[in-house]
Amino acid sequence: MKTSSGNFFEDFKLGQKLVHATPRTLTEGDTALHTALYGSRFAVQSADSFARALGYPRSPLDDLLVFHTVFGKSVPDISLNAVANLGYAEGHFVKPVYPGVSLTAVSEVIGLKENSNKQTGVVYVRTQGFDEQDDTVLSYVRWVMVRKRDVDAPVSEAHVPKLAAAVSAQQLVAPWNTQFSEFETSLSGSPHLWDDYQVGEKIDHVDGMTVEEAEHMLATRLYQNTARVHFNQFTEGKGRFGKRLIYGGHVISLARALSFNGLANAFSIAAINAGRHVNPLFSGDTVFAWSEVLDKQPVRDRKDVGALRLRLVATKNLPCGEFPDRNAEGQYPENVILDFDYWAFAPRR
Amino acid sequence: MKTSSGNFFEDFKLGQKLVHATPRTLTEGDTALHTALYGSRFAVQSADSFARALGYPRSPLDDLLVFHTVFGKSVPDISLNAVANLGYAEGHFVKPVYPGVSLTAVSEVIGLKENSNKQTGVVYVRTQGFDEQDDTVLSYVRWVMVRKRDVDAPVSEAHVPKLAAAVSAQQLVAPWNTQFSEFETSLSGSPHLWDDYQVGEKIDHVDGMTVEEAEHMLATRLYQNTARVHFNQFTEGKGRFGKRLIYGGHVISLARALSFNGLANAFSIAAINAGRHVNPLFSGDTVFAWSEVLDKQPVRDRKDVGALRLRLVATKNLPCGEFPDRNAEGQYPENVILDFDYWAFAPRR
Amino acid sequence: MKTSSGNFFEDFKLGQKLVHATPRTLTEGDTALHTALYGSRFAVQSADSFARALGYPRSPLDDLLVFHTVFGKSVPDISLNAVANLGYAEGHFVKPVYPGVSLTAVSEVIGLKENSNKQTGVVYVRTQGFDEQDDTVLSYVRWVMVRKRDVDAPVSEAHVPKLAAAVSAQQLVAPWNTQFSEFETSLSGSPHLWDDYQVGEKIDHVDGMTVEEAEHMLATRLYQNTARVHFNQFTEGKGRFGKRLIYGGHVISLARALSFNGLANAFSIAAINAGRHVNPLFSGDTVFAWSEVLDKQPVRDRKDVGALRLRLVATKNLPCGEFPDRNAEGQYPENVILDFDYWAFAPRR
Repeated sequence: MKTSSGNFFEDFKLGQKLVHATPRTLTEGDTALHTALYGSRFAVQSADSFARALGYPRSPLDDLLVFHTVFGKSVPDISLNAVANLGYAEGHFVKPVYPGVSLTAVSEVIGLKENSNKQTGVVYVRTQGFDEQDDTVLSYVRWVMVRKRDVDAPVSEAHVPKLAAAVSAQQLVAPWNTQFSEFETSLSGSPHLWDDYQVGEKIDHVDGMTVEEAEHMLATRLYQNTARVHFNQFTEGKGRFGKRLIYGGHVISLARALSFNGLANAFSIAAINAGRHVNPLFSGDTVFAWSEVLDKQPVRDRKDVGALRLRLVATKNLPCGEFPDRNAEGQYPENVILDFDYWAFAPRR
Repeated sequence: MKTSSGNFFEDFKLGQKLVHATPRTLTEGDTALHTALYGSRFAVQSADSFARALGYPRSPLDDLLVFHTVFGKSVPDISLNAVANLGYAEGHFVKPVYPGVSLTAVSEVIGLKENSNKQTGVVYVRTQGFDEQDDTVLSYVRWVMVRKRDVDAPVSEAHVPKLAAAVSAQQLVAPWNTQFSEFETSLSGSPHLWDDYQVGEKIDHVDGMTVEEAEHMLATRLYQNTARVHFNQFTEGKGRFGKRLIYGGHVISLARALSFNGLANAFSIAAINAGRHVNPLFSGDTVFAWSEVLDKQPVRDRKDVGALRLRLVATKNLPCGEFPDRNAEGQYPENVILDFDYWAFAPRR
Repeated sequence: MKTSSGNFFEDFKLGQKLVHATPRTLTEGDTALHTALYGSRFAVQSADSFARALGYPRSPLDDLLVFHTVFGKSVPDISLNAVANLGYAEGHFVKPVYPGVSLTAVSEVIGLKENSNKQTGVVYVRTQGFDEQDDTVLSYVRWVMVRKRDVDAPVSEAHVPKLAAAVSAQQLVAPWNTQFSEFETSLSGSPHLWDDYQVGEKIDHVDGMTVEEAEHMLATRLYQNTARVHFNQFTEGKGRFGKRLIYGGHVISLARALSFNGLANAFSIAAINAGRHVNPLFSGDTVFAWSEVLDKQPVRDRKDVGALRLRLVATKNLPCGEFPDRNAEGQYPENVILDFDYWAFAPRR
């Protein structure tokens, strides 16, 4: 067989390393498309002039563009036969990526657990993205529910990895050779710095963004993500939802772009603590978002920049003025689609 | 409040300067998207080889891409609470912008006039775009009708600025170090030079272009324009039109691209004399355009290039063979959507 | 008349050379859009690092992006009044094209044959694309059925050119200064090299891709292709199909991208032997594809790379597990949309 049909649950072994195909050079072209797809306005990533004034050699690529690219590489090997993308943890944005850098990705299987129905199992992988110097630029864990090819196939002994509930602020490293004390708030879009956010504070990002089929497919192909549910109406029209499912990462990027209105100075994602896609998004739906400040911590060796731990909640067809949330039992209303917990850097006074 | 809800009419003061957020580096990526969105074929902006033969260091960015970018920066401060974008005047394209240049924008409030209903008022601003040398690349006036937050709020004394009916041809400056006497018409797409156009001549641009939701939203986000009416079907579905309104600048760019067929050698926009969006455009509509030559003038110190004053009229769902226009009372038929008056440069014999 | 309405059949003369308008510099921005439009994953074109390891100075542009750009230039002169794009032959990809290169295009009329109804005739052209050194980067023949302006107009004597049934493998030249013996299959996405393909082998590419109006219009404008049937719903809604017709080249690119799954190491198109668009594609349709290995041949002076002659068949709304094909009379079922015969390079063991 010349055609790959992806790995099924019984194909994965604990400790297995998968070198993912199709290295990718990200460029100014990808940045332009990223802007067109999400309308992101964070100044560091938008203007070389602004980034240089802070010590960057030029604007780094948007963190989520890097994340989606690395994620996309892992799809043909990890999640082509996935039923659901269950969660993220221990995501570290280690090194800024600039236009012209070629990325590769490798995943290690760090956990496996067959489901009791023996039809599926959960695969845990730690995926790393590397640049041409073989430096890690990004590392994260995700776990997915993957179909078995053969219900009767023998599987490895169950192993569920211990994952950190959150990345510790002590592990966060601000970009080298940067200096945020002269961060120009008239250009960044908000006067509110790290010092101005309070733990427990909730922010409604107000604006809504409707998603079209052409948009999410352009995005998902840009990331060379081959998950079939996003592209094929012929098949999906007969499937579970009767329509194409939008890539969860598209939702994260939309919500992050919306969060600019309220978090304009949370200029860069430092770490992903946790993330869940709790309901599906479809074309024609309108995405809204709100954030909660979960924690704020100083950053090692830096007085010019701090870290905000933020919970970013996205909804569909539901404005967020009342901060729609899971209930006491942890169940999410059907309009909530994303619950994403991350650390962002923000300049200090 | 961390979230910005934009300025309302009573927030503006005569003489106030607003430094707009999110500087933006425009790149080859933006040029590619601009081509994909409009299909523009003006040779100077399309090929570095063609531009270099005329003395440019490389292809400059499309003038309207620069305009939309600068305009987009002004939206969060000027027109987030606008009811209508009423007009443009005194637009000067001062300096060509090349890929890699970072732009910033500043607006000055030059006029204010409350409407008699006290619900809204008209704000006049002169917006300037600057490059990294702080040189002005673009300057224009626009006026918008903006809602009041509080009907009873006191407002500034009315002041309506005197605006030029048109930019004088004497003010137009052709790009430095260029020389158009060797302009290659076999490559530019038309044998008709400045000399060949007659005042009063009308040109039907023939072709039509249908607009999709994904397209105008990609464009408007590319310009980081945050006006809500373009993006949010959830809210707009319940609003005035029941659907998303297309950014007026998207119409200008579509009409300008269509005008290539008839004006291929009007290679660059020199100035905007006036412009009005006289009816709204929606997804699914097909845009057509026609032009009228209003004036033709030599350009200061140049024998190789002249200026054409052109009126560009765009319609929706109405071919322009009969040059649909306002009537004797100045009223526009509902299919006419744009009336745009500008100076363009064209090579001379 | 300032507006061009294109050439009609009686305007063409045997031996006529047409210099096409609007030279075009292709950039990293175009590459990003190409990826977003098709999701192509061939490693040579995706990552500079991968290309450099093989001797390229950086990733060359996708061959079909170059093809569509050159094709697009020829449309205003050759096929604006075409009823149908009948076929391709003798396509040679002569020289890799890199971001930053400016392309121009010239066509020569090599055949003319009026149809018996005298309403239309077939025009054969050989179109060449040139870079700034005036080197040919691409050359191909296509023939189109073009309307007559005037049924009674006299036309040239019929001349049908003799075209090669296929490009001879002896004519194929692998890119200079490349060396594929170290081709890294863990990164390219498949272990299958030239040696592993058998003549007669058929490959179902499995995946399907649904096409939206916004996508094919963005693509076709990116190529500055002005054929009206792709863009104008107002007119096409009243026409033959009641809707916009998708540019045939968009289908080729979609099918080529789908063919990655099964032909990941057929990294570059060397030649086009033949090609026909046998049924139209419309927005909302889902494209599938399968390939057949028609021939395999060594490449002159090279032991590291061979040539595969591949037949790429695309369908709409019909998965290709059963390899849908023309019948014994050469008639295609209505779900088959493309029959494309080309040579691709692939590394050897």
